Amino acid sequence: MHGIQNAHATEAKDHIAISVLYPNQGKNMSQFLKVKTADEVISIVRKLEPLERETVELKAACGRVLSSAVQAPEALPHFSRATMDGYAVRAKDTFGASESLPALLKVGGEVLMGRSASVQLEAGKAIAIPTGGMLPMGADAVVMVEYTNNLDEATIEVIRPIAPGDNVLKVGEDIAQGETLFAAGWRLRPQDVGLLAALGIAEVQVFARPRVAIISTGDEVLPVSSCPPPMGKIRDINSFTLAAQVQQAGALVGFEEVVTDDLDALSASCSSALIENDVVLLSGGSSVGSRDFTLQILDRFPTAELLVHGIAIRPGKPTILARIGKKVFWGLPGQPVSALMIFRAFVLPSLAILEGQSDLSGMSGNVVRATLNRQLPSVHGRSEYVPVVVSRVEERVVATPIFGKSAMIGILAKADGYVIVPEHVEGLDSGSEVQVYILSR
Amino acid sequence: MHGIQNAHATEAKDHIAISVLYPNQGKNMSQFLKVKTADEVISIVRKLEPLERETVELKAACGRVLSSAVQAPEALPHFSRATMDGYAVRAKDTFGASESLPALLKVGGEVLMGRSASVQLEAGKAIAIPTGGMLPMGADAVVMVEYTNNLDEATIEVIRPIAPGDNVLKVGEDIAQGETLFAAGWRLRPQDVGLLAALGIAEVQVFARPRVAIISTGDEVLPVSSCPPPMGKIRDINSFTLAAQVQQAGALVGFEEVVTDDLDALSASCSSALIENDVVLLSGGSSVGSRDFTLQILDRFPTAELLVHGIAIRPGKPTILARIGKKVFWGLPGQPVSALMIFRAFVLPSLAILEGQSDLSGMSGNVVRATLNRQLPSVHGRSEYVPVVVSRVEERVVATPIFGKSAMIGILAKADGYVIVPEHVEGLDSGSEVQVYILSR
Repeated sequence: MHGIQNAHATEAKDHIAISVLYPNQGKNMSQFLKVKTADEVISIVRKLEPLERETVELKAACGRVLSSAVQAPEALPHFSRATMDGYAVRAKDTFGASESLPALLKVGGEVLMGRSASVQLEAGKAIAIPTGGMLPMGADAVVMVEYTNNLDEATIEVIRPIAPGDNVLKVGEDIAQGETLFAAGWRLRPQDVGLLAALGIAEVQVFARPRVAIISTGDEVLPVSSCPPPMGKIRDINSFTLAAQVQQAGALVGFEEVVTDDLDALSASCSSALIENDVVLLSGGSSVGSRDFTLQILDRFPTAELLVHGIAIRPGKPTILARIGKKVFWGLPGQPVSALMIFRAFVLPSLAILEGQSDLSGMSGNVVRATLNRQLPSVHGRSEYVPVVVSRVEERVVATPIFGKSAMIGILAKADGYVIVPEHVEGLDSGSEVQVYILSR
Repeated sequence: MHGIQNAHATEAKDHIAISVLYPNQGKNMSQFLKVKTADEVISIVRKLEPLERETVELKAACGRVLSSAVQAPEALPHFSRATMDGYAVRAKDTFGASESLPALLKVGGEVLMGRSASVQLEAGKAIAIPTGGMLPMGADAVVMVEYTNNLDEATIEVIRPIAPGDNVLKVGEDIAQGETLFAAGWRLRPQDVGLLAALGIAEVQVFARPRVAIISTGDEVLPVSSCPPPMGKIRDINSFTLAAQVQQAGALVGFEEVVTDDLDALSASCSSALIENDVVLLSGGSSVGSRDFTLQILDRFPTAELLVHGIAIRPGKPTILARIGKKVFWGLPGQPVSALMIFRAFVLPSLAILEGQSDLSGMSGNVVRATLNRQLPSVHGRSEYVPVVVSRVEERVVATPIFGKSAMIGILAKADGYVIVPEHVEGLDSGSEVQVYILSR
């Protein structure tokens, strides 16, 4: 049992002995790495390189990240359009019009929907036009049908003056030709796809979506179908929570395996996973043996480079981030609560960076301000992620912390979200205003 | 042009003449319907009945809505587990222990990960145990390895006292057997799926996801591939924005068609759409003709029941909601900005209700508080949805309205979200604190 004791004695000092093969050095080296702060880890994550580029059809482009900027190939609209049903007119023919002194105009034809307006508007005339219809030559405004009266089949009176441009969408008024619509790194939303459709952009260049391998390890871990599991064994949880989160993030699950705590078996699983996947999430290692295995596995890959070994965060401290060539390797804690928090805080941003997303500010999802109704003790120098229930008490939104152990998946199922106690404070007082990060579907 | 004028004269009074076949009455009836408020429409939407139930595997269950409550078939954990690496002990054997006066315990064996703890702990003894290991009979706590020292191979000293239950997750401490985990109508999140996995629940009963038909109409509407479109014509936008939003909502796009403004063609398209889809979104009808067509199409379905004809909202007033048997029919405005706003405000909740979701409070997505930096004029009695850009000015989050016409899709591509000016106020002053509903991917 000496092994356990030594590992922990050092971990307690926030320093961990590691032995990993560094690239270009060709030998094992053992050194002490300092546990990193959450911000330091995010800085490292931001330096990951985006995946290769690919072309997708516009129908499949929503949620994808553009790999190059997009300019408008033409003006939108490409012809001046009426935005109201009414009559195309020359605005100056309506100047001074009122109910008591209406302007009289001859109806000189009709614009048909979807057709080129072939008639030219002459002075003193009006041409009937539907919403979306093409403004005829000579017209500079559309008078709404509500402000007209039919005197006879060929004559209308206009009872209000209008200004040039009224109820008209001019050529290029929506989008000018050549205008930059989106920068590279922008994740397309439904309305963005609509704009691209309007401009006839039928396919777009995007970054590939990360393919993620999910490996759960532990001698105690069984598939979900085990019913009932024998004493000492538990069913696999992390494969499910991680796969669901990967898919939520718009990434792909390319590989899933539950492996026993055996170095050869784990190394073989990682090797298989790395063939066709961009990211490996190895969760488990809540036991000492598998924690050690994660570093030993990395040792077996000549191009492995350890980037993070331990994060000053609770839960989730024993997290590992490494690069294996261009692939990304996360060693996640086995405790389900820890694994989920680490996924939200670090893995999710890393997937976005791999997908080329330039702005991570929206990554936190739905955030709600609330009043904390209990004291939250914490340790200076470590971020704490605390699950909370959100409720409405009269006019106030209240966050109630759920205290429990990080092995309890039930905590997260009961939680609406979580509060982050920053590393630079020693706890939060009851009554503090906090941000609740909502754990939504 | 008399038709246009009459339709508008009445619409301007917020009353619209309709003629639709009511169910069980067997005849056409023409009557005036009052435009409904946004709240009234949501009340109507809430009364829609959920779709049929189906069984899905747990791997595919994230984001789905439970059709019946789920109870825990067993306790979690089903055996007491260590939550730390260390030694299983009887807590009272450590009482009074300190660095200067440690408790001496004989090591009486080791619990292996994933194995039943067969050894029984005797008084004065300790059994080595890894995190997640099964607590042996006789033990009631785990002393962390950090608080022990090995005296020799067979003896440890414990330098801190621990209490019964310390570093142990007891049987049922996470979830009690029979406990209700989720009510019917709950939409499963990643962590919820994890909890179900832990309990061996390999499949769940859920409501079917709505299958949605998207029909775009308009004589001016062309497919995206038309390049360049002739004068008077524009490319289809709504099919793209609506399909993307339907998919974002977790629903399925089962049918897509662009149809000219022809009553027979539109009716045929709707008939085809209704065969295999639960919802029809007919967008278009920005021209007068197609507005009338929507009601005439409903007239052709004997079971059609008009629920909403016009909403006191801008943009998006000429919206129609009907039921055709058990199917739901939305007549959406043709203007892309209007169609998107109506989707967010009403269609999205209707899809959630069809899918059996009981709590709609999270439907608004990400909401950010901001300070309005312009005056927003509005009309009492009508909700206004105003696109805004969100920026950070020093410490403040500022919302800048984007003014423009609802035919301009570019507005929404430039917007980060929108502000709702409620129907009971006449505009908002510059400097008001507002909620911004973020238009995310």
